[in-house]
Amino acid sequence: MTNTTDTTASATAGKATGLTPDEVESQLIDTVIASFAGTSDARLKELLTSLVTHLHGFIRDVRLTEEEWNQAINFLTAVGHITDDRRQEFILLSDVLGASMQTINVSNTPYKDATEATVFGPFFVDDAPQIDNGGDIAGGGVGQPAWVEGVVRDTDGNPVPGARIEVWEADEEGLYDVQHDDDRVYGRAFLFSEDDGSFRFWGLTPTPYPIPDDGPVGALLKATSRSPMRASHLHFMVTAPGLRTLVTHIFVTGDELLATDSVFGVKESLVKDFEQQPAGTPTPDGRDLGDATWSRARFDIVLAPEGV
Amino acid sequence: MTNTTDTTASATAGKATGLTPDEVESQLIDTVIASFAGTSDARLKELLTSLVTHLHGFIRDVRLTEEEWNQAINFLTAVGHITDDRRQEFILLSDVLGASMQTINVSNTPYKDATEATVFGPFFVDDAPQIDNGGDIAGGGVGQPAWVEGVVRDTDGNPVPGARIEVWEADEEGLYDVQHDDDRVYGRAFLFSEDDGSFRFWGLTPTPYPIPDDGPVGALLKATSRSPMRASHLHFMVTAPGLRTLVTHIFVTGDELLATDSVFGVKESLVKDFEQQPAGTPTPDGRDLGDATWSRARFDIVLAPEGV
Repeated sequence: MTNTTDTTASATAGKATGLTPDEVESQLIDTVIASFAGTSDARLKELLTSLVTHLHGFIRDVRLTEEEWNQAINFLTAVGHITDDRRQEFILLSDVLGASMQTINVSNTPYKDATEATVFGPFFVDDAPQIDNGGDIAGGGVGQPAWVEGVVRDTDGNPVPGARIEVWEADEEGLYDVQHDDDRVYGRAFLFSEDDGSFRFWGLTPTPYPIPDDGPVGALLKATSRSPMRASHLHFMVTAPGLRTLVTHIFVTGDELLATDSVFGVKESLVKDFEQQPAGTPTPDGRDLGDATWSRARFDIVLAPEGV
Repeated sequence: MTNTTDTTASATAGKATGLTPDEVESQLIDTVIASFAGTSDARLKELLTSLVTHLHGFIRDVRLTEEEWNQAINFLTAVGHITDDRRQEFILLSDVLGASMQTINVSNTPYKDATEATVFGPFFVDDAPQIDNGGDIAGGGVGQPAWVEGVVRDTDGNPVPGARIEVWEADEEGLYDVQHDDDRVYGRAFLFSEDDGSFRFWGLTPTPYPIPDDGPVGALLKATSRSPMRASHLHFMVTAPGLRTLVTHIFVTGDELLATDSVFGVKESLVKDFEQQPAGTPTPDGRDLGDATWSRARFDIVLAPEGV
């Protein structure tokens, strides 16, 4: 080292590593994974190891550019900033990438003829009113009345009495009650199955609606020519002691959106006939609907044992 | 369909799909990828296809539970909410997962003896003051003076005159100027290489500092027993017409943090001797440092051609 600036090439400038790009990239993955070696929670370590492997796999596969990385940071920042107590854009993002549905798939192992699960969605709240069997969940929500009935059983065919059945749905304008700025409650309730496992209630014939698409996830859908529309559906969550909690929907036979549901929630076994009833058709419980049409659907529910 | 509730098992309840879990999960990935078929931007389609493949691969590999999915949503929400104009937690997250460094790796193909790149970091601002060769970038920032000199060349060995050299660094308290709430400017400047490619300036001997660790990324580091400390470094960004922009750091030989840099930015070729000079050692430019010690380092820079 001298005190004058040396203009001859330094032997160490841009020193070749002797590694191929593939080796450099693989070594980085190993180093990042090794950095988590001291994690005391074995499951957290497992999650991070797999996450790093797949995140780096993505970056390598697409040869991500710095500009694209910047766009990704900006996109995630926008998703974070639009998210608040009433709007969960990260869940929407997970939904439209099918990540929510895949989590449901891997968390709900098929078991005998147990009813299939689908996405939970962001619109459940746990303070819905209780109704008796045969009651109405509509609560003033607008739409065509629908009579829904079925039986809850276990996978041995035994009826499940006292199962708690939460149901919730959007009105025919495509909005859940919680999407309004006030505290109105409609389109949701819970009830319990009878001694023979049976249940029945009035709801609304499900109608299609778009997921909120005025944010970054909506922009992603537009950029990819995808529709924000969800297939028409009615949510269920069914719990009973000793049995696996079932979170699912039922869909409507003939709905043209079944094949392009924006959150990939449709399963064939969950598509049910909502049979249209002409005005004046007698109702199952003698309810007088005047000259309104109505529909009826059957949904028999089979619960797997807990822990399978 | 009758008007009474049928308590015998419905043939369609919990209808078996006839598919194995593996088939169900694979079909979902195919369906999600197919949903992007209408994307007009071919690169966006490529990015999303790979992203979906790896995201679903992660969920399947770890058999992600719904509770873990919830925790992930809450974590990302917290990352989004702490991010503002002065704090970019998504970049920190990308950094500590090695994603930023891997993006640098795949975006900067090794080319002959071109100087290696490393992470950009969140602390660059583009309104730094210009200095002449031999000037001081410290701008009042506190730390031991360091004389840094070198030559900018291309990969054919020709000197590169007029290369714009941006340099920035933290002070010895571990803070960049932009981390303060006022508009102070220190530890940053730009200069141009001379006709013979040479450059020289006074800066501060780099010292270690933690990345901001009072947010969700800091909580992740704590949960995994990882240190937030970065190895001591001095940032460079070098641009010249017709040559590939180089974003890099130089590190300090002997720094005990080289092996555990929290953002995985260290490359062996970028570790430089900052030779300690006893008080009273004559400075290269005759600057009188009184009884202060100082250091000196050499960093020769080789720029690849643009577009390689």
